[in-house]
Amino acid sequence: MSNQNISKSTLQRLPLYLNYLKSLPDTVINISATAIAEELRLNDVQVRKDLACVSTSGKPKIGYNTEDLIRELVAFLGYDNNNNAVIVGAGKLGRALMGYTGFKEYGLNILLAFDQNPDVVNEQELILPIFRLKEICGRMKIKIGIITVPAASAQEVCDLLVESGVLAIWNFAPVHLKVPDGILVQNENMAASLAVLSNHLSEQIGKNR
Amino acid sequence: MSNQNISKSTLQRLPLYLNYLKSLPDTVINISATAIAEELRLNDVQVRKDLACVSTSGKPKIGYNTEDLIRELVAFLGYDNNNNAVIVGAGKLGRALMGYTGFKEYGLNILLAFDQNPDVVNEQELILPIFRLKEICGRMKIKIGIITVPAASAQEVCDLLVESGVLAIWNFAPVHLKVPDGILVQNENMAASLAVLSNHLSEQIGKNR
Repeated sequence: MSNQNISKSTLQRLPLYLNYLKSLPDTVINISATAIAEELRLNDVQVRKDLACVSTSGKPKIGYNTEDLIRELVAFLGYDNNNNAVIVGAGKLGRALMGYTGFKEYGLNILLAFDQNPDVVNEQELILPIFRLKEICGRMKIKIGIITVPAASAQEVCDLLVESGVLAIWNFAPVHLKVPDGILVQNENMAASLAVLSNHLSEQIGKNR
Repeated sequence: MSNQNISKSTLQRLPLYLNYLKSLPDTVINISATAIAEELRLNDVQVRKDLACVSTSGKPKIGYNTEDLIRELVAFLGYDNNNNAVIVGAGKLGRALMGYTGFKEYGLNILLAFDQNPDVVNEQELILPIFRLKEICGRMKIKIGIITVPAASAQEVCDLLVESGVLAIWNFAPVHLKVPDGILVQNENMAASLAVLSNHLSEQIGKNR
């Protein structure tokens, strides 16, 4: 199974399928794409196409063996290999992410954090000074960098991560990062989410006036 | 200025503009949509249209007064009113979000958390038992609920929040939530982000073999 040509939107739906399948009782031996589509309110042609990227085990009229499909999704999503990552910016958000054990389930292993503020650096808590980033990422062959610095320093940190050999960046700073070809930036734009929430509220409250 | 008809993608770009404008030195009195577009690598027609939803103060050949535009963006995004919110699920992620002071900047004020586990409930830390959710949200007129429970309980929690009068839900559980009309769900799908990152890595590493 190749994952070279899979679309980003398919990739983003796969964890939804996986979570749904995991939530089913053990008595559900087989499941059809149609049943999954109905439950998740998605188009069933789309679900069928998505699952075809991941599995070849679906059978007409029977569907997929639930356990096999879970295993195939986990493998495809890389949740069974460990991706080591570092965080840059050990402020509140950075430390919250470091302390969050839930990422292990998704194969993300946050090893270390870096910060430029000497008051925050603490080797016992695995928070190192930023000047050691390049050497350590190179030596440990770190491929994922997580940016949780303020917006104003995010581009500088991004450049440093790229120089250090990182190939994928998970960006929590609300800025657009410029990267060379071959480097992926995945934005986790919480400020954008909050804008959508807040706008919805002002619309709803406007209506009820 | 009405925000009834603004598209979700425009809304999601507005915080980027705001952050960029805030990062400029005080000496930048005026700025054009073209300059913003170039800096953020966006289409300048799009930037012009986005800003026209927020501000009427742009002038031909001069552009926008930077300070005015910042003020207009802040007001439009609702960052200057306080939206009170509650969290359901006081696990690692829920507590991390509770402790993250950065949301205040975006007008989000997390007042309380709720959890069903009596061992986690702690009134001094503002973590209350779930059975008090409906009463408290009703009394305090809470309109935003943040879901940080495991995927399997997210729909149940969502229903409870809607019954309690919440109009907008910020969902960190990797599941599709069903809600009545008029209720907005904003998904923060970290599992999806991790799938995109991990797939990029396996592609890149595959190439270099």
